[in-house]
Amino acid sequence: MQKVIFDTDPGVDDALALLYLLRHPDIDLMGVTTVFGNAPVALTTRNARFLLRSWGHDVPVHAGSAGPLTPDMPEDDFPVHIHGRNGLGDHPVPDDPREEAESASSFLIDTIRANPGQIRILAVGRMTNLARALQTAPDIADLVRDVVIMGGAFRVPGNITPAAEANIWGDPLAADLVFGAGWQVTAIPLDLTTRTFMTRPMLARLAQEGGPDMQLVADLSQGYVGFYRQSGYDGMVVHDCCASVFLTDPELFALTTGEVRVPWQGIALGTTMMNPSDRQGPMDAWADRPRQAAALDGQPEAILARIAQVCAG
Amino acid sequence: MQKVIFDTDPGVDDALALLYLLRHPDIDLMGVTTVFGNAPVALTTRNARFLLRSWGHDVPVHAGSAGPLTPDMPEDDFPVHIHGRNGLGDHPVPDDPREEAESASSFLIDTIRANPGQIRILAVGRMTNLARALQTAPDIADLVRDVVIMGGAFRVPGNITPAAEANIWGDPLAADLVFGAGWQVTAIPLDLTTRTFMTRPMLARLAQEGGPDMQLVADLSQGYVGFYRQSGYDGMVVHDCCASVFLTDPELFALTTGEVRVPWQGIALGTTMMNPSDRQGPMDAWADRPRQAAALDGQPEAILARIAQVCAG
Repeated sequence: MQKVIFDTDPGVDDALALLYLLRHPDIDLMGVTTVFGNAPVALTTRNARFLLRSWGHDVPVHAGSAGPLTPDMPEDDFPVHIHGRNGLGDHPVPDDPREEAESASSFLIDTIRANPGQIRILAVGRMTNLARALQTAPDIADLVRDVVIMGGAFRVPGNITPAAEANIWGDPLAADLVFGAGWQVTAIPLDLTTRTFMTRPMLARLAQEGGPDMQLVADLSQGYVGFYRQSGYDGMVVHDCCASVFLTDPELFALTTGEVRVPWQGIALGTTMMNPSDRQGPMDAWADRPRQAAALDGQPEAILARIAQVCAG
Repeated sequence: MQKVIFDTDPGVDDALALLYLLRHPDIDLMGVTTVFGNAPVALTTRNARFLLRSWGHDVPVHAGSAGPLTPDMPEDDFPVHIHGRNGLGDHPVPDDPREEAESASSFLIDTIRANPGQIRILAVGRMTNLARALQTAPDIADLVRDVVIMGGAFRVPGNITPAAEANIWGDPLAADLVFGAGWQVTAIPLDLTTRTFMTRPMLARLAQEGGPDMQLVADLSQGYVGFYRQSGYDGMVVHDCCASVFLTDPELFALTTGEVRVPWQGIALGTTMMNPSDRQGPMDAWADRPRQAAALDGQPEAILARIAQVCAG
């Protein structure tokens, strides 16, 4: 069994990624930490609890950061046109959001220290909680098994700016700290996730075959599907669940390794810039950084088939 | 006949690019403007004159900028390990370099105004002269036929940093101004030029078949070939001449269009960041910029064959 902490901002595709983790027989979900991003943290925390309760799971949820580490960030609106005003596609959620003390980073630190060499962190939102945990307890970098993130756009355009992917853009300093720490980070970036496109008929089939749990995902995904329809696509990109599949089926992902930097000021803010291992030439600001990995390629159809198998099997 | 101004910093591969322009029957070389880059501008100017005289051509040479427009640039050394201490691979050059008044930008402005709609600028060094000309005479953007540059690294790593190509890095503000002006810019970037690799046997054959003019190029290229040998390659990348071929054989180049920004501060300094025309999503700092082009792909073998045909034919 893999011991996993899921750091998330549900978020519509976060919900599918969470269902995958809960349903997969090899994954022991130790806890969920929440972060601002797709919605304010009070909403993403409420949403995480709602999903877990709806699916009958008693996994601890720890509220995380309400805003970025990065100073002087440009103004940002929550993406209500993608994830709805409530963060779950405006699907009705009974509980009201409430303010909570931040406990995500201490939960990360305590759990990693209590399980040396065993914890895999799957982070699919801003990297703020991970960076705060690193700042408080640098020793966790050596104690964690690895870190898998959904984020970045290495050799393709970004989604929130022409150069930046939203999770990285939303707290670029945090991302630069996470890529710069001495733990193994594997990024599952737009280069691959935009190709894991679940068509509307496939989503409908999963809802039919997967029972009420998967039906809930399909229901709250309808606004997200509508967002893609406006851009001429019939279905939805399952960014976060693509990263979940990496935990269980790494052979479906083709990794490129190298040092990664993220600028956190100016027009390049949030761009993921890699120095690939096969490059020769001056290292500049990439010198003395750890070598990380990014899945710049992979097998989208096989990844989608795994999602179907686990979430509706 | 195409009326061309060649903006250059000879520079070893600049020499081959210049020979191509002089030998091609469709090109009328109106003048050469020089710029710092591969060597100080006094040397690149001296080298341009030496090459033209050696080849029996009486094209006017105008000295250009000695340093970048960009403020607060990091310290930079001239790449003597690539282009030699004299900028021409330490091949003996009889004339001493001398200080000259800057006349490149006024030559560009005057020649463009005197030949409306006709001048093609081929710029294979820092974009400083072009940016200064634009600042002095914004009207030239509407009067030039087009601008072709060797520079940038769009979907591949850089050469001077992991993110930046040397010509853009050397004056990133100038490049951002050039990409942002209302003239048609086509970049011939590392994405393609690193694949136009002339092997040592091919260079030797061209020297044998091309007479003394091509023999001179081969002689001064030996240090450059030695630089590539240290990295495990047997030959040399002909970056600048690849851009020359675009003028005459555009069908060998596959263009991607989009707005381009170049950050000129921080770790992303000199990165070329495009918003491709088929991208949907927020434009951010790319809004209201002109759509330019970059040859992200093409036919390297056919480009090399054209170089052989023109320079040794």
